[in-house]
Amino acid sequence: MDVYEQSLKLHEEWEGKLSTEPKCQVKTREDLALAYTPGVAEPCRKIADNPEDAYKYTQKGNTIAVVSDGSAVLGLGNIGAAAAMPVMEGKAVLFKSFGDVNAVPICLDTQDTEEIIDTVIRIAPAFGGINLEDISAPRCFEIERRLNEALDIPVFHDDQHGTAIVVLSGIINALRITGKKKEECRIVVNGSGAAGIAITKLLLTYGFKHIILCDSKGIIHKGQDNLNWIKKEMAEVTNLEGKTGGLADALVGADIFIGVSAPNVVTADMVKTMNKDAIILAMANPTPEILPDVAKAAGARIVGTGRSDFPNQVNNVIAFPGIFKGALEGRASIITEEMKLAAATAIAEIVTDEELNEDYIIPEAFNPLVADAVSAAVKAHIHK
Amino acid sequence: MDVYEQSLKLHEEWEGKLSTEPKCQVKTREDLALAYTPGVAEPCRKIADNPEDAYKYTQKGNTIAVVSDGSAVLGLGNIGAAAAMPVMEGKAVLFKSFGDVNAVPICLDTQDTEEIIDTVIRIAPAFGGINLEDISAPRCFEIERRLNEALDIPVFHDDQHGTAIVVLSGIINALRITGKKKEECRIVVNGSGAAGIAITKLLLTYGFKHIILCDSKGIIHKGQDNLNWIKKEMAEVTNLEGKTGGLADALVGADIFIGVSAPNVVTADMVKTMNKDAIILAMANPTPEILPDVAKAAGARIVGTGRSDFPNQVNNVIAFPGIFKGALEGRASIITEEMKLAAATAIAEIVTDEELNEDYIIPEAFNPLVADAVSAAVKAHIHK
Repeated sequence: MDVYEQSLKLHEEWEGKLSTEPKCQVKTREDLALAYTPGVAEPCRKIADNPEDAYKYTQKGNTIAVVSDGSAVLGLGNIGAAAAMPVMEGKAVLFKSFGDVNAVPICLDTQDTEEIIDTVIRIAPAFGGINLEDISAPRCFEIERRLNEALDIPVFHDDQHGTAIVVLSGIINALRITGKKKEECRIVVNGSGAAGIAITKLLLTYGFKHIILCDSKGIIHKGQDNLNWIKKEMAEVTNLEGKTGGLADALVGADIFIGVSAPNVVTADMVKTMNKDAIILAMANPTPEILPDVAKAAGARIVGTGRSDFPNQVNNVIAFPGIFKGALEGRASIITEEMKLAAATAIAEIVTDEELNEDYIIPEAFNPLVADAVSAAVKAHIHK
Repeated sequence: MDVYEQSLKLHEEWEGKLSTEPKCQVKTREDLALAYTPGVAEPCRKIADNPEDAYKYTQKGNTIAVVSDGSAVLGLGNIGAAAAMPVMEGKAVLFKSFGDVNAVPICLDTQDTEEIIDTVIRIAPAFGGINLEDISAPRCFEIERRLNEALDIPVFHDDQHGTAIVVLSGIINALRITGKKKEECRIVVNGSGAAGIAITKLLLTYGFKHIILCDSKGIIHKGQDNLNWIKKEMAEVTNLEGKTGGLADALVGADIFIGVSAPNVVTADMVKTMNKDAIILAMANPTPEILPDVAKAAGARIVGTGRSDFPNQVNNVIAFPGIFKGALEGRASIITEEMKLAAATAIAEIVTDEELNEDYIIPEAFNPLVADAVSAAVKAHIHK
């Protein structure tokens, strides 16, 4: 049985990967009077008087919703709400297992931007945070921004920011090895969906100056026709030299390639045109933009992928559980750029100077230090 | 410390009464590959091909949402979504503890009928059923009806039907004791909110003929001004003799009084005007319409209340966990009148002839037979 057949069999046994378990027992009349009526009226009254008390007397302080519309699920594309559930349940399992955050999967039977926004606002009272998941670009940008404006709890699109944070942490450590300076590095980001845009933005915020963003048609540049609004915005802050052409043109003289695009789009010849000590994060799944051994043979010094069977796996699970753990514990109302940078730095620092090498720039997902380190970094950067 | 102070203290310790617990572990790369990517793609694909497979591979088959808008919470009234959460969490605890049904509390930040309907439809894919809770009348009737029309999963407003089912089971057993015939019984239902309307409807469906429904202004009758639409509907099928007047007028010659109204509205003198072997279910909480000892002294034979410290407690927890357990196990798309009648009969039958007496017409909430008996009765009446 391959991993797919085995997973299917297990999913049938599990009948859902989550159980809602009571923290209190109701075995006697007294139990019932305390956990339910009449006693429960008292916390209700307290919250009615002071809405902040919801954090004190309900699940709000330690529970988030994992919300998807099923429009961009894994590599499967737009498979809809019902079919997205196994992923959202899995995500909820990871939140709990790695970050001790209760997470409730919610799959929405709509892909209309306004309806998604309205729905999430309406279900928000039960939750201390919203993790958006697998919502296609460019709708995901507007949905996340509008929800963050409307709600006083953090809204975080993991496909964007979780990926961006882990990529940045990998790049930080790759610079520790290669000695490259962020102000001088030339970066090419291939793929301008949710992840590619968020990676580019976070790298700019961190202090990288020279980033070229490509989509399937090539280098994104100012004055280009037919760009959607987010690509137009990105054209203003990237590719300052106004390059045009394809991915191969972009890579000439580049120090770093970041791929969130498609299998095998980078060739050995392209890598040969990159600068010395080239850094490559080729995260197309399951087949990366270029295989690690091919990239290394062509001169790359550090190569990471999205896969667990190659070194340097870029895996969001390193970031998102700790992000929400810290945000909930610190009662953040939003996840700021500052918190994302702090998380990326904290992840990078988990790898000690002794451990750091070309094949170990990102800590293991299962490293028990990770979620606490990320959580502490996020909490330390909450301003009230 | 009284029950309220004690409950408040416990709620602060619990920090929410629910925990979302993984059924699978993610301690190794292999675990992760099976519970999450890449393996999870396979159940996703199956569900995309055949939506019914959601019941096979996700939580849908054993998980419901407990949805409230906080408009009619306990005796507290319209306290809003956030303040309703302790009750909805408590309800979810009862679903799990008594019926082994996973329940997710959802409190909606809207009290607009259309918005509530839209929102519940949109979040439905994750759930196998919707339990509506503490939504004020008459909006609750339309919300439930429209949702049952729109969704292929059962939608059940417990304040209506849970109460009605348990009331009917108590009445069935009270007739076993008194020998009264349902066709001849004269019933007065006082209170025409969600519970009063649903009780009246279910009693009519069961075969009672003579029911007078009262609201705070007195007997509801045909041709009356200023009735809302649901009371107008009820005026057509109740009070066939066209009585007018107050509650005292209604009770003259009545066999059964059912109160879901207000404290102390029934006097000993009123009970004295009722028929021999009068049956009284006085469910206003915490102070009933008439206290049991007062009613008995005035001639009532059987008295029940909503309280656990008097005999014959009418408690919804006897019904709702088994209702959804059966509906989910039998994959019902709706909870029909037939299923409600079957549940009420099954609850009544749990009390054996030997056990049955004036002070024991309704089984204990903690009787472990209850949920399974209700569930089996519901399942036996699902037609596909």
